Amino acid sequence: MVSLFQGVHHLPIWLLLFMSFWSLSEEGKLLVIPVDGSHWLSMHSLVLQLQQRGHHIVVAAPEVSALIEPSEHYTLKTYFVPYTKEYLEAEFRRLGHQVFTPRPFLERVTQTFARIGNITTFLLNSCKQLLSNKELIISLKESAFDAVLMDPIFLCGQAVAEYLSLPSIYFSRGIPCGLEFQAARCPNPPSYIPRFFTHYTDHMTFPQRMWNIIVSSALSWSCSLLYSSHEDLIRDFLQQDVTMTELLSHASIWLLKYDFAFEYPRPVMPNIVLIGGVTCGQQKPLSQEFESIVNASGEHGFVVFSLGSMVSEIPMKKAQQFAEAFGTIPQTILWRYTGQPPPNLANNTKLIKWLPQNDLLAHPKARAFITHGGSHGIYEGICNGVPMVLMPLFGDQMDNAKRIESRGAGVTLNVLDMTSKDLSAALNTVIYDKSYKENIMRLSALHLDRPIHPLDLAVHWIEFVMRHKGAPHLRPAAHDLNWIQYHSLDVIAFLLAVVLVAMFISWKCCLFCCRKCFCKKGRVSKSSKTKAQ
Amino acid sequence: MVSLFQGVHHLPIWLLLFMSFWSLSEEGKLLVIPVDGSHWLSMHSLVLQLQQRGHHIVVAAPEVSALIEPSEHYTLKTYFVPYTKEYLEAEFRRLGHQVFTPRPFLERVTQTFARIGNITTFLLNSCKQLLSNKELIISLKESAFDAVLMDPIFLCGQAVAEYLSLPSIYFSRGIPCGLEFQAARCPNPPSYIPRFFTHYTDHMTFPQRMWNIIVSSALSWSCSLLYSSHEDLIRDFLQQDVTMTELLSHASIWLLKYDFAFEYPRPVMPNIVLIGGVTCGQQKPLSQEFESIVNASGEHGFVVFSLGSMVSEIPMKKAQQFAEAFGTIPQTILWRYTGQPPPNLANNTKLIKWLPQNDLLAHPKARAFITHGGSHGIYEGICNGVPMVLMPLFGDQMDNAKRIESRGAGVTLNVLDMTSKDLSAALNTVIYDKSYKENIMRLSALHLDRPIHPLDLAVHWIEFVMRHKGAPHLRPAAHDLNWIQYHSLDVIAFLLAVVLVAMFISWKCCLFCCRKCFCKKGRVSKSSKTKAQ
Repeated sequence: MVSLFQGVHHLPIWLLLFMSFWSLSEEGKLLVIPVDGSHWLSMHSLVLQLQQRGHHIVVAAPEVSALIEPSEHYTLKTYFVPYTKEYLEAEFRRLGHQVFTPRPFLERVTQTFARIGNITTFLLNSCKQLLSNKELIISLKESAFDAVLMDPIFLCGQAVAEYLSLPSIYFSRGIPCGLEFQAARCPNPPSYIPRFFTHYTDHMTFPQRMWNIIVSSALSWSCSLLYSSHEDLIRDFLQQDVTMTELLSHASIWLLKYDFAFEYPRPVMPNIVLIGGVTCGQQKPLSQEFESIVNASGEHGFVVFSLGSMVSEIPMKKAQQFAEAFGTIPQTILWRYTGQPPPNLANNTKLIKWLPQNDLLAHPKARAFITHGGSHGIYEGICNGVPMVLMPLFGDQMDNAKRIESRGAGVTLNVLDMTSKDLSAALNTVIYDKSYKENIMRLSALHLDRPIHPLDLAVHWIEFVMRHKGAPHLRPAAHDLNWIQYHSLDVIAFLLAVVLVAMFISWKCCLFCCRKCFCKKGRVSKSSKTKAQ
Repeated sequence: MVSLFQGVHHLPIWLLLFMSFWSLSEEGKLLVIPVDGSHWLSMHSLVLQLQQRGHHIVVAAPEVSALIEPSEHYTLKTYFVPYTKEYLEAEFRRLGHQVFTPRPFLERVTQTFARIGNITTFLLNSCKQLLSNKELIISLKESAFDAVLMDPIFLCGQAVAEYLSLPSIYFSRGIPCGLEFQAARCPNPPSYIPRFFTHYTDHMTFPQRMWNIIVSSALSWSCSLLYSSHEDLIRDFLQQDVTMTELLSHASIWLLKYDFAFEYPRPVMPNIVLIGGVTCGQQKPLSQEFESIVNASGEHGFVVFSLGSMVSEIPMKKAQQFAEAFGTIPQTILWRYTGQPPPNLANNTKLIKWLPQNDLLAHPKARAFITHGGSHGIYEGICNGVPMVLMPLFGDQMDNAKRIESRGAGVTLNVLDMTSKDLSAALNTVIYDKSYKENIMRLSALHLDRPIHPLDLAVHWIEFVMRHKGAPHLRPAAHDLNWIQYHSLDVIAFLLAVVLVAMFISWKCCLFCCRKCFCKKGRVSKSSKTKAQ
C-alpha cells in the first residue's frame, strides 16, 4: 500500500508538523457501524487498512451476525438482537431458494416489496436494540471517537453519530431510492440518469424517460414510507424533530463504490468521493490446490462461477441445469457451491466451498466470470479484465448487469427463464467473441488508470474527516434553501408578477392615452363641426 | 515531484506493460494553444512538468507576445499577428492606468464592456491569423499529436483540435459567462451559485438571488453576442455548422484552477477536474538580496505587495497614497513596482522589479499579502497561510476577493475610493486581528490536505487523454438531449395531458351517469306519478 500524503515535499513545514503531530499524538479513534452480509465484506477491507495505518477501530454490531466476527484488527462491541444465528442462516438460505423459484410477474413484484419491507423491519429492530442499549451508548460516548464510518442503509448509524456529536463518513454502493442524491443535494435529472430497478441505460427512449420519472417518484415515496418508523424511533432518541433526508444530509463524506468505467456519467457533489474497485486489491499467489486445477485447465483455461456471499445453495433442478451447460464447454469450471452436488456434474466442473475469487480472476487463464452482479464481484471482473455472464438475483444486481451488458463486456441471463443451452451459448459468446474481451479490457484500462488507488482515496477522506472534525467546506449552501428557493420558483414568480404588472400598467396607459387622443380629436372635431355649422 | 501511477503495485502486469510500452515507444506529443498574459504563467508551469516527464511539447502562439517566449522546454511555433510588441506593452500600461482612474458608475460599466469587447476582438484577430496560416496548420497536422492542451477563452484552439481530429484538455479558472458549465452540461443553480461580477457569496438574500438570475441570463446573452464572430470564422474553417457551446462541449477534460477551500461548493461533472493551487509549488531558498531584507524586518516581519503580472505601473497619485499608508506600519514592505518611485516613500518600503512571490509568502516572517486577487496569487496566499488585503482591479478578481473576504481571511479595498488610512487600517486588521491568520491557516490546512498534488493530478489527466485518445466514458448522455428533453418538459407535458384527458373523460362519464340516474329517477317518478293517478 502506498503511503498517503503523497507529494508531501510540496507542503510547508508547519503543515507537516501538524500532520505528524496529529498522527503521533493520537492515532485516531474510529467508530464503525456496519451492515451485515456482503455490505460488510467490502467495508471490512477498508477497516483493515485503517487499522494498519494505526487507528483504533471499534465496530458496533448486532451480537448475532452472518459475517461480522470478532477480530484482532478491531474491537467488536455488540448489542443484543432478538434472533439467533440459525434463524439468520435459514433466512439467507430461504433468500437463495426464493430467487430461484419461478413466479408470475405480479407475485414477483409483491415479493420484491415484501423482501425490502422485511429488510427494513430487520434493520429497524436492530436500530431499536442499538439505541436502547444504554450501556453501549454510554461506553461509545466515553470512547471519544474522531468520526463514525457507517453504511447509510442503516440510518441508525447517523442517529448515533448525532448523539455523540461526531462527523460521519458513509460507505455505500447507493441507496435504492436515490436518497443519497436527495440528501447530498446532488442534481439527479431523470432524463439521462436511469433509476434503480428500471434496468435502463443512460440513453432512454421517450417511454423509458417517462417510466424513469414515474419510478423515481414511486421510489422516493416508498422510501419515505419504509423509513417513517425509523424517523419516529430516531426522533424519540435524539429528542429533536428530524427527517431521514435531513439526517443523511449531515454526512461529511459519501464514499460511493463505483466509478465511470462502470456507472453512467452524472453530476456529483464535492463531498461525494467515488471509490469503485476499492476491494479489488493486489493479486496474491494461488494455493497449491487451486494452482494445480488452474494449470490442468490447459489451453482452454477456466471459468469462475460464484453467486456471491449470500447465495451458496440453490434448488437442485437449477443446479442440474448449470451442470448440464458446463458439461458442454471445454473450459474448467470453478464453482463456489456448498449444496448437494448435482448428479450430472461433468468432469470439468469443480465444486468448491470457498474461492479466492480475485486471485483466480487475475490469472491469465481466466476466460469468463459467471456472477450474480454484485458490485464487489463486478469490480473484480472489471479490474482483472474478465468478460462476464451475469445472472442478477435481487437488489441493484439487475442494474449492475445492465451496465456491463450495455458496454458489450458481458451477457445477462434471466436466471429463472434460462435453459442450460442459454448458459452454454452465453459462455461461448463471451469466451470466443473477441469483442467481449476487448470491451472488458478497455473498461479495465480506464478503471485502473487513476492517480490514486480507491482504497487509499477512501482512507485519505476518512482521515481528513478525523483530522478536521468533518468537512463543512464541502457542504453546499443548497442545504440552507427550501425546495422553492432551490429551484428559484419564488424569484421566477416575482419576476413574472413584475412583468405582468408592468404590462398591465403599460396597457392601461396606452388605453388612457388613446382615449385622451380620441376624446380630444372628438372634441376638436365636434367644435369644428359646430364652427362649420 | 512524485511519480504518477501511484499504487502501481495494485495493477495487473498486462496494464503495467501497456503503460510502460506507451511511455517508452512514444513519449507523447502535445500541442499547446495558450492565451498570453497571466493565463500563460500558470499554464507554463504545467508545460514544464509535462516536458520533464518526457513529452514533446509544441506551443502555437502569436509571434508577438507579452510573456510567451521561446524556451528549451518546448518548440514554439508562431503565427503572424498584425501588431507589435510595443503596441502590446502600451496596451498593458493603458490597462494599468485605466483601472486606477476614478469614473462615474455608468462610465465604468461601459468601460468594462468595452474592455471585454476589445479582448474578444483581439482574440478574434489572433484566431483569424492562426486559422488562415495554412503552413502552420499543415505542419501541425503532420506532427501527429496525441492531444491539445488549451485555454478555452481562446475558442480557436478547439477549432484546431477539431480540424486535427485530436482530443482536447482545457485549462482555465472559468469563463466569465459560465459557459464551461453550459458546455459540460453541469447543473449550475443560480439560487446558491453566485455568478461572476455579482460579488455575492453562496448565501444570497431574495433580491440577490433575483439579481443573480438576471445577471446569469445577461452574461449568457452577452457571451453569445461576443463569440458570434468566432462562430462564423470557425464555421468557415471547419466547413460545418457548429455553435460555441457545441465546440466547447467536445472537451475531454476541463482542468479548473480552483478547489473548495476557495470556491463555494457546487456540483461538478465527471470530466471536470479541480486543480486549485496547481502553481503553488515547493518553496525555494531566497536569494542573498531577499534573505537580507527579510531578516532585517525583525519581529514585525514583512508584507508582500504585488498587483500581478499585468499591472506593474500605476498613476503617481495612487502610488503616493500607497507609500503614505506603508509609512505608518512597522512591517517592511516588499513592493513589486517598475514605475517612478513616489517621493514620499518611507524607509520600510522596498520597490522591487520582480519578486519571488511564493518563496517570500512561504517565509515565516510574512505577515500579510497585498494582492489584486488573481487566482494565481490568491492560491499562493492560501497555500502559504498568509492573510490578504485584496485590491481587485478587473475580471474575476472582485469575485475572488469576495471569496477570501467571506471566509474571514482577508479584507477587500476599493482601489479607486480608498484612502491611505483605509489601507493602513486594513493592513493592521489582517496582521493584528488573530482571526484572519486563524482563518487563512484553516483554509490552508483544508487546501493542502489532499491525496495528490494538483500539478500531478493535472499531468495525470492530460496523459490519460493522450493514452486513451480522449475520455468518452466521462461524457454524460445529457449531451445527446435537447433542452426540452434534458428538463423532461416533453414527458411532463405528456403526463399532464394524460391526466387532463383522464379527468375530462371521468367528468364526462360522471355527467353521463348522473344524467342517466336523474333521467331514470325522473322517468320512475313520472311513471309512479302516473300509476298513482
